[in-house]
Parts: sequence; structure tokens; C-alpha cells
Amino acid sequence: MATGGGAFKFYDKIREVLGVDVLREDEMECLIIGLDFFITEIPREVFTYSETDPMQFEEPRSDIYPYLLVNIGSGVSMIKVSGPREFQRVGGTSLGGGTLWGLLSLLTGARTFDEMLANAERGDNAKVDMLVGDIYGTDYGKIGLKSSTIASSFGKVFRMKREAEREAEDSGGLSKNDAGFLPSPTSPTSSAEPNPTSEVPEPESSSSSFNAEDISRSLLYAISNNIGQIAYLQSEKHNLSTIYFGGSFIRGHRQTINTLSYAIKFWSDGAKKAYFLRHEGFLGAVGAFLKRQPRNWGRRGSLEESGSGVGDRKGADGI
Amino acid sequence: MATGGGAFKFYDKIREVLGVDVLREDEMECLIIGLDFFITEIPREVFTYSETDPMQFEEPRSDIYPYLLVNIGSGVSMIKVSGPREFQRVGGTSLGGGTLWGLLSLLTGARTFDEMLANAERGDNAKVDMLVGDIYGTDYGKIGLKSSTIASSFGKVFRMKREAEREAEDSGGLSKNDAGFLPSPTSPTSSAEPNPTSEVPEPESSSSSFNAEDISRSLLYAISNNIGQIAYLQSEKHNLSTIYFGGSFIRGHRQTINTLSYAIKFWSDGAKKAYFLRHEGFLGAVGAFLKRQPRNWGRRGSLEESGSGVGDRKGADGI
Repeated sequence: MATGGGAFKFYDKIREVLGVDVLREDEMECLIIGLDFFITEIPREVFTYSETDPMQFEEPRSDIYPYLLVNIGSGVSMIKVSGPREFQRVGGTSLGGGTLWGLLSLLTGARTFDEMLANAERGDNAKVDMLVGDIYGTDYGKIGLKSSTIASSFGKVFRMKREAEREAEDSGGLSKNDAGFLPSPTSPTSSAEPNPTSEVPEPESSSSSFNAEDISRSLLYAISNNIGQIAYLQSEKHNLSTIYFGGSFIRGHRQTINTLSYAIKFWSDGAKKAYFLRHEGFLGAVGAFLKRQPRNWGRRGSLEESGSGVGDRKGADGI
Repeated sequence: MATGGGAFKFYDKIREVLGVDVLREDEMECLIIGLDFFITEIPREVFTYSETDPMQFEEPRSDIYPYLLVNIGSGVSMIKVSGPREFQRVGGTSLGGGTLWGLLSLLTGARTFDEMLANAERGDNAKVDMLVGDIYGTDYGKIGLKSSTIASSFGKVFRMKREAEREAEDSGGLSKNDAGFLPSPTSPTSSAEPNPTSEVPEPESSSSSFNAEDISRSLLYAISNNIGQIAYLQSEKHNLSTIYFGGSFIRGHRQTINTLSYAIKFWSDGAKKAYFLRHEGFLGAVGAFLKRQPRNWGRRGSLEESGSGVGDRKGADGI
């Protein structure tokens, strides 16, 4: 059983190279079947995040519809689920995991997602992002913006880079005051490294004045915040009070989960919560597996009944 | 008169260096006053975009409320305007002009926004973006996605880059088939340039296998699409049928206007339109100017009455 784009794209190849039959299942349908199974049947699976309790588990329950599933892979799909196998893709965004991986591999030289996440963990996004406080010197209370709010992701980069280049070009010529140049509000010049050896710095050399950790954290925040906001707005438009996040982008990574949770809480004024799953990357695979099993192939609650029903439990343990 | 973040941040500096008094006006209020003036009074100012008629002008009108203003500068603010000087910031996104300028200055070495836009004009985003067709080999009709839809912005980059690096590392060792490696669906290996001189390519050198034009177009699309989608969703949430776009990011640039228009049309199924202004970058400045003028300082319709009222027209011509 296979699902996802690859199940179609590589259908012939897999059969030929591996010498196996391939049963192709629709990706969205499998995702939903897998998710429904996890939500309704598996204890200690669904959780919400807070600083004090990073994994607060929800009890499995049966009254789950309707809900919004936000599946984050290379891109992002948002799916409204109204009942068993009843669903509709209501939106999504092309700014997803692939965007983060692609841009960070170009900008930081990180070679794996784990490396990128480790970088982000150590970074300070305020070094590259323009915060409300950088613009106004304070909160912009009149419209409800805190000084720590990110006004522009990577908003400090362009100005700092141009400044460093100007310095390199001027190299002892006009001073900034002579040129009528006002210092940037966002860039103490000490942190932008001029490149005195070249008049026109090469694009490749200039990213070195920004640090891989800060860049990684900024982009992780930007992508996660953006997904959170769009998910919230879609949930509003379609009257969905529960939002589940799944897909391989999340990977149990605390900062990502934290940012997505925060975004939902922020945008909904605390009215909505983001729900996560321990097996977020396996929804589709489990769904494809389940779809081909006879009904009631496993035994509900078998995980708790440790002394009984051993013979019935093979399937469930297999997951 | 000054408005915007700089009017607060540089208040002392401007007074001191330029030796002038500075009257600071609230940014949002000035934006709205300026916009209301343009919408209600100025002919050939507000326009919609279509391929066949890139500047279809709207007549000035007085029944303008409520509407949504999307102001795109370094960051993006979305403001619901319910009446004269009656407004509320309902949302925004940190993915704005500053993000585009910052990332493109790092990735392509472009040194001005105009250079970036010129690059984007010549680029092909399909070289770096993962399209629906790249994933499924075809449309994913079941959920309404065309094969040309962007599934993941920069979604091709990570895989292509890793492949080039693997080739450089393997340098004649294991062939891909021996390693059980399936060719990427999205990257004919010919277009990824291996770097045979180094085992671990430096981050700085590797972006050179992607071209500045393609990268620029991809990011321009990503940022504009994203703003368009969020603007549409906010307009739905707040029941606003008219969406104006303003701010220095747009700059009369056809591709940007095209993408924003397309996004609004796409997400609203054609029910809503994006409106643009010829003087998009000057809303706040004009608003600050107007705020300090006596009421009825200009003369309505004076632009058309070319033979009369010369004495009254100074103010209006000044704009």
C-alpha cells in the first residue's frame, strides 16, 4: 500500500525496481482515515502545548466532527473534515517545510532538517527581523502591537547589508554625517561587517555577516506563524473550533509546536487551541494501511487490557 | 509634518540636524485620511488589473465604507475602515517587502528593489518551486489543484542541492541505483551542478547553481500570493467587499499587481477584486499634509475645470 504523490509518480518504477505490486490510495483520504483513527482510538496521542506543560494529552473521543486538519509537508494543505471520509481541501499555502528547507540550505549550508532545527534553537531572530520596537522605539499601543512583535521577517537584513556595502565603498571617504545619512534605526554598525576587499561584494560572500542560527530561527518563526494565522482564518471562515496539525514538518520539535500554538492562541484571542499528534508524520501511511484491513480488525482498548486478548492484538501492535 | 515610525524614532534627530519643528501624526490615521482623499476625490487614481486592461480606472465615489486597506511596506498591516477616521488594525503579516528585500539581497546580490523586480521579470519560478504537477505528475483534480499550482515555494531547492552534494561526495563511487536511490521527481540531474572540488560544499558557493532571476520570481510570487490570501481571508472574516492595496512594496510593478489581483480573484472565486492606487506609496504623507489643512482647502473637481478657479488650486496642484 502506498499513498502520497510518490505513489502515483513512482508507480511503475517501484513495481519494476522492487518487483512488488503497488496498491495506490488517495492521499487526502488516507490522511483523514489515519487521523480519525488516532483521534478516536489512541490514548496519549493528541496533545496541546503550553510552556508549563509541553504535552498535555487529550482523551480519545468520538464526537470529533467537524474539524480542520492542517497538514504541513513541503507545502501546506488545510482540510475541512465534516464526517468519516467526508472532507474538502479548503486552502493551504505554498510557504511550508520545503520553503524552510530550501531557503535554509541556500542561506546557512545546513544539510539536514535536524541541523536546521538545532541552529534555530540557538538563534536570536531579533538580529535579522525588524520588530515593532525597532520601528517605533516602543510599543505601538494605539493599534495593539507590542514592541517585541515581529513587524517584518528579515526586515533588518537589507538595510544592514546596504550599509556594510556603503561603508566598504566609501572606505574613509565621506563620513555618514557629511552625506546626510541618518543611522539606521535597526542596525548598530558594529554588527554589520564591512567587506573592505571588494567594491561590489559578491552575493555569495555577504550572507556571512548574518549568522546561520539567527537566520534559521527567523525563518522557522516566519513560516510557522504564517501557517498558524492562515489556519486560524480558515477555521473562522468555516466555523471549525478544533484545529489539528500534522505532517512531517512538525517532528515533535518544541519551537515549531510552540510557535503554531502561540499563533492560534494569539489570533483567536485565546478562544482556540492547536492540537498536535505524537505520530504526526504517519497519518497517511496508517490510513492507507487501515483502508485495506477488514472492519474491526483490531480490538478497541487492547493497549490497556494487558492481560487479555493477546491473540487479537497482532494488528494493533503492528502499528 | 511627519508620520510613520521614523517620525517618532528620529524626532529629536530631525529637529536637531535639520533645525526644524516636527509635527508628528499617527501613521494609521494619516494612511486612512490619505486613502479616503484619493478614493473619493481623485479621478484616474483607483484601478483594477486584468491581463487585457492593466489599469482599469474606477470613478471616485463617496459611499466607500466599510473597506479593507492592505498596506505593504517592510511588513504588512491590514486595516478595517468603517467610516472617516474610524479604523481598526485587524491583522497583518511579517512576510512583507522587508522579507523580499532581505532574502533577495542575501540570495542574489541584487542591491536595489528595482534590480530585484527586473530579475523577477526574467525568471521562471518553476525552476525552484515545486508545482503540483512535479508531485503528482498531473493535476490533483480530486481536490481541485491544477498541475501548475505552486505546492511548495522553493520546494525544489533542498532536494536538488542535496543531490548535487551527494554526487560530489560519491564522485564515481556507488551509483544511484546501487544505493537504492530513486531519482527526484523534480530535479533532472542535469540542471543541478555538482561541485566536484569540495567534499563539503561551502554554503556560500552552493546558491550559485540556482539562478537569481528564478529565485527572485519565486519569492515575489510567494510573498504576494501570501498577502493576497490573508487579505482575502480577513475581508471574509470582517465582511468587507472592497480591498485596497497600498504601500511602497507595489510600486506600480505589473507582476506584483498581477499576483495580488490573481490571489484575490482565485481565493474569492471571482467574487472580490483587488483595487490599487496610482499614488500607493504616498497615502501617509498626503494624509499628514491634509490633516493640518483647514477643511475645504482645495476645490473639488478643480482638475477638470481647467479654465476656472486658478486662485483656489494651489493646494490641489501641490499634491
